[in-house]
Amino acid sequence: MDCPWNELSLAFSRTSMFPFFDIAHYLVSVMALKHQPGAAVMAWRNPLSSWFTAMLHCFGGGILSCVLLGEPPLRFLANNTNILLASSIWYIVFFCPRDLVSQGYSFLPVQLFAVGMKEVTRTWKIVGGVTHANSYYKNGWIVMIAIGWARGAGGSIITNFEQLVKGCWKPEADEWLKMSYPAKVTLLGSVIFTFQQTNHLAISRHNLMFLYTMFLVATKSEETFSRRPLPDSCPFVRTEAQASSWTSRCQGLGLAKKGIWGRLPLVPLQ
Amino acid sequence: MDCPWNELSLAFSRTSMFPFFDIAHYLVSVMALKHQPGAAVMAWRNPLSSWFTAMLHCFGGGILSCVLLGEPPLRFLANNTNILLASSIWYIVFFCPRDLVSQGYSFLPVQLFAVGMKEVTRTWKIVGGVTHANSYYKNGWIVMIAIGWARGAGGSIITNFEQLVKGCWKPEADEWLKMSYPAKVTLLGSVIFTFQQTNHLAISRHNLMFLYTMFLVATKSEETFSRRPLPDSCPFVRTEAQASSWTSRCQGLGLAKKGIWGRLPLVPLQ
Amino acid sequence: MDCPWNELSLAFSRTSMFPFFDIAHYLVSVMALKHQPGAAVMAWRNPLSSWFTAMLHCFGGGILSCVLLGEPPLRFLANNTNILLASSIWYIVFFCPRDLVSQGYSFLPVQLFAVGMKEVTRTWKIVGGVTHANSYYKNGWIVMIAIGWARGAGGSIITNFEQLVKGCWKPEADEWLKMSYPAKVTLLGSVIFTFQQTNHLAISRHNLMFLYTMFLVATKSEETFSRRPLPDSCPFVRTEAQASSWTSRCQGLGLAKKGIWGRLPLVPLQ
Repeated sequence: MDCPWNELSLAFSRTSMFPFFDIAHYLVSVMALKHQPGAAVMAWRNPLSSWFTAMLHCFGGGILSCVLLGEPPLRFLANNTNILLASSIWYIVFFCPRDLVSQGYSFLPVQLFAVGMKEVTRTWKIVGGVTHANSYYKNGWIVMIAIGWARGAGGSIITNFEQLVKGCWKPEADEWLKMSYPAKVTLLGSVIFTFQQTNHLAISRHNLMFLYTMFLVATKSEETFSRRPLPDSCPFVRTEAQASSWTSRCQGLGLAKKGIWGRLPLVPLQ
Repeated sequence: MDCPWNELSLAFSRTSMFPFFDIAHYLVSVMALKHQPGAAVMAWRNPLSSWFTAMLHCFGGGILSCVLLGEPPLRFLANNTNILLASSIWYIVFFCPRDLVSQGYSFLPVQLFAVGMKEVTRTWKIVGGVTHANSYYKNGWIVMIAIGWARGAGGSIITNFEQLVKGCWKPEADEWLKMSYPAKVTLLGSVIFTFQQTNHLAISRHNLMFLYTMFLVATKSEETFSRRPLPDSCPFVRTEAQASSWTSRCQGLGLAKKGIWGRLPLVPLQ
Repeated sequence: MDCPWNELSLAFSRTSMFPFFDIAHYLVSVMALKHQPGAAVMAWRNPLSSWFTAMLHCFGGGILSCVLLGEPPLRFLANNTNILLASSIWYIVFFCPRDLVSQGYSFLPVQLFAVGMKEVTRTWKIVGGVTHANSYYKNGWIVMIAIGWARGAGGSIITNFEQLVKGCWKPEADEWLKMSYPAKVTLLGSVIFTFQQTNHLAISRHNLMFLYTMFLVATKSEETFSRRPLPDSCPFVRTEAQASSWTSRCQGLGLAKKGIWGRLPLVPLQ
């Protein structure tokens, strides 16, 4: 109980996200928006549209979870302080004289620091989503997983949908729901925290939050440091590759033995 | 009151849909999904996406009615038993060794039986939707019709929308809201049950449910038996053909007499 | 207090929109729909789809504000009287023998009158939206602006979205959220009434309603009279042109002096 580790993780789990971690989250989200082709020009030509997209990037997860739970999607606008904070960051990122913010952000240590802090907010969002869903549906563990996932990684779904409406994104049929790395890791976290919430996992929540956050920050920092999407050495990719090869071996066997799978065109399953 | 007919229909109207009729509904819905081109390959490459689409096929009507009434669209996920049931059926349909389920389903008597049971659930859904909407809006008979219709036939709207988002369906302007046969017959049922609910129809509900279900099962079985979309002899098609020919005659007359309709290009109205 | 001006504006602010102003609103909305290419043919071929689109045109703002506040979007259907009124107007506009209604509407004084009355309903909607949002979120002035704006001008967003789903509208990336004149003027009104609601504007609401309505009716009548979109002499266009020229001068300077803006392709900023 009183060991220093426990105290550390308890203190960590009580950290407030506002303002510094929220600022990091807004900064990383808006910078991701700015690096999209055409976004900078767009902000000059149609500031309202750019601001709206930036808000979707910053608050997308919360909006999606509100929609899924039948709550007002505008609720996020009621938090005037956070809106003003995110709007200020949108403003200085896009309109700062001499593009100082972008230049500062391209300095690697700054970026690592911001990205790490953003990943911390992800844990808080997942936990918030899971407990919020739990207050609605006592035993609805599928709902808890879904809401935790939506709040932690829903921003990308909302912004993809916005791009679809705008007409600047055409989805390929087999890209749909092909989850990105953050989506997968958020789903994993959502499952873990749901099991913790329903007492199927014998670990206290603050310890779990600490461990999961460390895992998030470490993998994301490594990805940022190597400046490319997570390498093949990451656990998911390896597990999936094995699953795929196993699957295709099964398919191959079935085809060879019985021909029943013949109606299923053999596709490379990487 | 005590005549055997009345007792039969009363007992029928108290039948529980869970589990057998629900299973038939899930089976028919997932088989319809599997017969879409590319769905089987998709399930191997991206199981999560396939599972999600299958859930939309199974619970689409409920989701649409929740959205329209401002209730949480995730509510269907709170019913763990039904989710697990539908997921199991999705699993055995797509991943059963040697495709046994599909082969069994292609046997006509099995298919007739499943399709007939699925139509029974449609009546229950319409009645459920109408009474649910009635609890919200006492005299809102338009809302009652809309919700009964959404719950009974909304699955196809939801799945069409999903295909639109995925980019594998491009609607033609004049196909939009061109209702399929199930949509039409559900709308008819929704109107009938709404009138019954508002006491404009002097028939007890269990009798109406029995008659309407018999009508549904008979027409659907005939369609399945003849293995093609409902023939031209169906009542709707004949009525509509007459209405169309009457309309075009009117148009033709107007054009011939006054030329006022000249601005309306004459189109073949089949 | 008792000056005649005050009494006049007070009486004006208590005018009921039902039925005459509502009728004018429905008439103008449905006529706007009818003037879209293909809408008249569509109404003959697929009346249900046409009726649905007409309802979206008439009640779009209310639906959007319901969606944003997490209320049932079907609530508008619960008002049977208004639905029947709008449906009747849709019917006589599209199916009136000899197209009498369209011909009558093309007579300029009738059109001016209808358009003027429709603009009056806009004020009522903005005020209704702002006060409604205020009852949800006491200090959420951003929500109040958004809801007032959605209710006053949301119809066009809803109908654009419907056209997108139907596939007969492809948005250009830089047209998105490029606001039309009504959208801008509604946003202005929404901001003004929100400030009035939060007591930051020392003017009584009925006076503000009167003044704003007069402004709306005057500008809209001028636009209708000259039969073209609002001329360059309108205040917004001039202000924006100045802002644009100022912006591009800034950009030009920055480019000339430091070259930092070089990554931002210079675009003509009309």
